[in-house]
Amino acid sequence: MASTEVNNNQVILKDYITGMPKLSHMLLKSTKLPLQLKDGSQDVLAKNLYLSCDPYMRGCMRNLPSYFTPIFTPGSVINGYGVAKVVISNHPDFKEDDLVMGITGWEEYSIIPGGNQLQKIRYTDIPLSYYLGILGMPGLTAYVGFYDLSSPKAGEKVFISAASGAVGQLVGQFAKMHGCYVVGSAGSKQKVELLKDRLGFDDAFNYKEELDLHATLKRYFPNGIDIYFENVGSKMLEAVLENMNLHGRIAACGMISEYNLEEGQGIRNISRVISKRIKIQGFIIHDYWHMYPQFVEKVRGSIKEGKIVYVEDIADGLENAPAAFVGLFEGKNIGKQVVRICDE
Amino acid sequence: MASTEVNNNQVILKDYITGMPKLSHMLLKSTKLPLQLKDGSQDVLAKNLYLSCDPYMRGCMRNLPSYFTPIFTPGSVINGYGVAKVVISNHPDFKEDDLVMGITGWEEYSIIPGGNQLQKIRYTDIPLSYYLGILGMPGLTAYVGFYDLSSPKAGEKVFISAASGAVGQLVGQFAKMHGCYVVGSAGSKQKVELLKDRLGFDDAFNYKEELDLHATLKRYFPNGIDIYFENVGSKMLEAVLENMNLHGRIAACGMISEYNLEEGQGIRNISRVISKRIKIQGFIIHDYWHMYPQFVEKVRGSIKEGKIVYVEDIADGLENAPAAFVGLFEGKNIGKQVVRICDE
Repeated sequence: MASTEVNNNQVILKDYITGMPKLSHMLLKSTKLPLQLKDGSQDVLAKNLYLSCDPYMRGCMRNLPSYFTPIFTPGSVINGYGVAKVVISNHPDFKEDDLVMGITGWEEYSIIPGGNQLQKIRYTDIPLSYYLGILGMPGLTAYVGFYDLSSPKAGEKVFISAASGAVGQLVGQFAKMHGCYVVGSAGSKQKVELLKDRLGFDDAFNYKEELDLHATLKRYFPNGIDIYFENVGSKMLEAVLENMNLHGRIAACGMISEYNLEEGQGIRNISRVISKRIKIQGFIIHDYWHMYPQFVEKVRGSIKEGKIVYVEDIADGLENAPAAFVGLFEGKNIGKQVVRICDE
Repeated sequence: MASTEVNNNQVILKDYITGMPKLSHMLLKSTKLPLQLKDGSQDVLAKNLYLSCDPYMRGCMRNLPSYFTPIFTPGSVINGYGVAKVVISNHPDFKEDDLVMGITGWEEYSIIPGGNQLQKIRYTDIPLSYYLGILGMPGLTAYVGFYDLSSPKAGEKVFISAASGAVGQLVGQFAKMHGCYVVGSAGSKQKVELLKDRLGFDDAFNYKEELDLHATLKRYFPNGIDIYFENVGSKMLEAVLENMNLHGRIAACGMISEYNLEEGQGIRNISRVISKRIKIQGFIIHDYWHMYPQFVEKVRGSIKEGKIVYVEDIADGLENAPAAFVGLFEGKNIGKQVVRICDE
C-alpha cells in the first residue's frame, strides 16, 4: 500500500556564503514527503511548529569546521532547533502527538534520524516557542554561562553585550536575581528601553551611539566589571578587557560581530588577562545538555511566577524564515527570533 | 655615636621608558648608606647576594599601572627579587646573618621596609641563586600554572613558549614528570638543543626560523595542543589558538613579546576560545605565595635527586645588571638570568 504523501516546503541554502547572510543565499523549495519511516530505524517524523533563528547557524554556512553542528550542505535544507509534533515514531521514547524539541529542518515536516538528541516537552502550560528560547538552547546557555562558569557573587558588577537577545536578556535577569548590578548593551533605543523597563537591568546603552567604548564602560562601571557575558567579540571585548576588575571572569558563548568576517578583528590588549588575572572561558552548550532537566525545573517556576520574563520576536510562516535569519545580523529582532510554522 | 656608613652602589632608572630597554636608560650611582634602622620600625637591612632579572620588571618602567609591584620611580633605585643576608633586623622573624629572599633593590645593601614579604631561606644545601629561579618566583609560577591552573592529565600534549627561560624550563620538566608530551619553542639553536638534550623536552624548535607558526605547530602537534603555557603572546598565541584541542587550557603568566609595545598586537582569532571551549587563565604569582612552603618541600627533593635540573645564566657584579636585564628582551640569556652581587 502506498503511504500518504504530504507537501513539504523547505528553505534551502544555495551555497556556502561569505560576508553577511542575504535573502538571495536561500530559496524556498516545494517538495513532497511520503509519511513513512525506514523499517528497522529509530527515526522520528515530526511536523514542525516553531523554528529557531540562532547566530551560530551562520557558522554552518561556510566550508569550515563549525561550532558543534555539522556544517550545512549546499543545495539541502537548512537545519536548526525546532519545536515539533511527532507524526510517526520508530523510536521507543517518542510516540504520535508527542511534542518535542531538538534539531529539525527548516521545512514543514522533518525526519529526525534516530530521534537524535530530541527532548520531549513535558510542560505545555508554557508557550511552546519558549522551548527555543528561555527553555531551550539559549536558556541553558545563559544558565550555564552565568551560574556555572562565572562564579557570581551578590553585589558583583555584570556586563552583558547583545543584552536584549535570546541569551543576554536571561543572563541579565539571572544576575539581578543573584543580587548583582547589571548593565547591558544593545543596538537600538528601543532595545535599551526594553532592557531597562521590562527586563529589569540597572542600566543599558546603545553601543551604536558610543564613539569610545572604553570610555562608555568606564562611565557605566566606574568601579570596573567583575563578570562579562560575551556575545559579540572584537572591539567590545577589547574595551571590556580595559575595564575588567582583578580576577574578573568572561564567559564567552558567542562573538556575533566576528561571524561574518573572513578573518576576525584583532584584540590588541589580550595581555590584560595576565595583569588582571582574568579567566576567559569559551563554551558550547552542546557540552551541557545533561543539565537540561535540572535547568527546566529551576527556571519553569520563575517563569510561572512572573519572576522572569522573556521577549520573543516571532515571524510567521516558513517563507519568512530567511528574512528573520538575515535580520539577526542586522539587529532587527527585538528579543529571541523565532519562526512560527503552524499552530499545534 | 655615629653609625657605620658603607658604600652602596645602586642601579638607577633614569626615566620611564618606551620601546626596548637600553643600557642608556639606567645608570650606576655611588651612594653611602648608614648601617642603621629607624627606631620603632620593623625594617630589615640586608646585603644583597644575588639579584634577579625578570621580564615583569619592564612593566614597572612605564607610567602605567603595573602587574603587581609598584611601578619604579624615575631617579630611584630599581627593585626586584633578590637573595640577601640580613645585616641588621628590627623584625622579630629575622636576625643578623639570616639568608632571605624577597623584593630588594638593585644595590649592594637594601633596607626592606617592615621586612615586607621576605621569605627566610631554610635550605642552604641548594645554590642560593636558585631562590630567584627554581625555588623562587619563576618556580612557583611554573608550579601553580601547570599543576593548579592547567588541570594536566598524563598523555596530554603540552606546548611551552619561551621554553628555556626561567619559568618555561620548569613547566616542561613538570609536564614530563606528569607523563605529558612536551614541545617548547625558543629563540636560538643553542636553546633548542638545551631543551632537547638537557631539559628532557620531547621536541623543540627555534621560532625565529619558522615562517608560518600555524604550520609549525601543526607539524609538532599533528593531534593538537591540550595545554599551552603562555609566556610570549601576540603571533604565537594566535597560532596556538588555531592548534588547540577542544577543552584546551592556556595558563598565561607572561606575554614578553608585548611588553615593549605601546599597543599590543591584535589576536585575530580569539573566537576560537568558543568553538574549542578553551579556558584562558591569566595569573600573577603574587596571589599564590601562600603555596610557597608546600612548593619548596615538593620541589627540593626533585632537585636533590637530580630529577629536575635548572639552567641559569649568571652575570657577575652589580655593574653588569643593566646589560643582563636588557639582554632578556634580546633573548641573550640561556636559562634564568641572575646577577651575582657578592659571595656570601
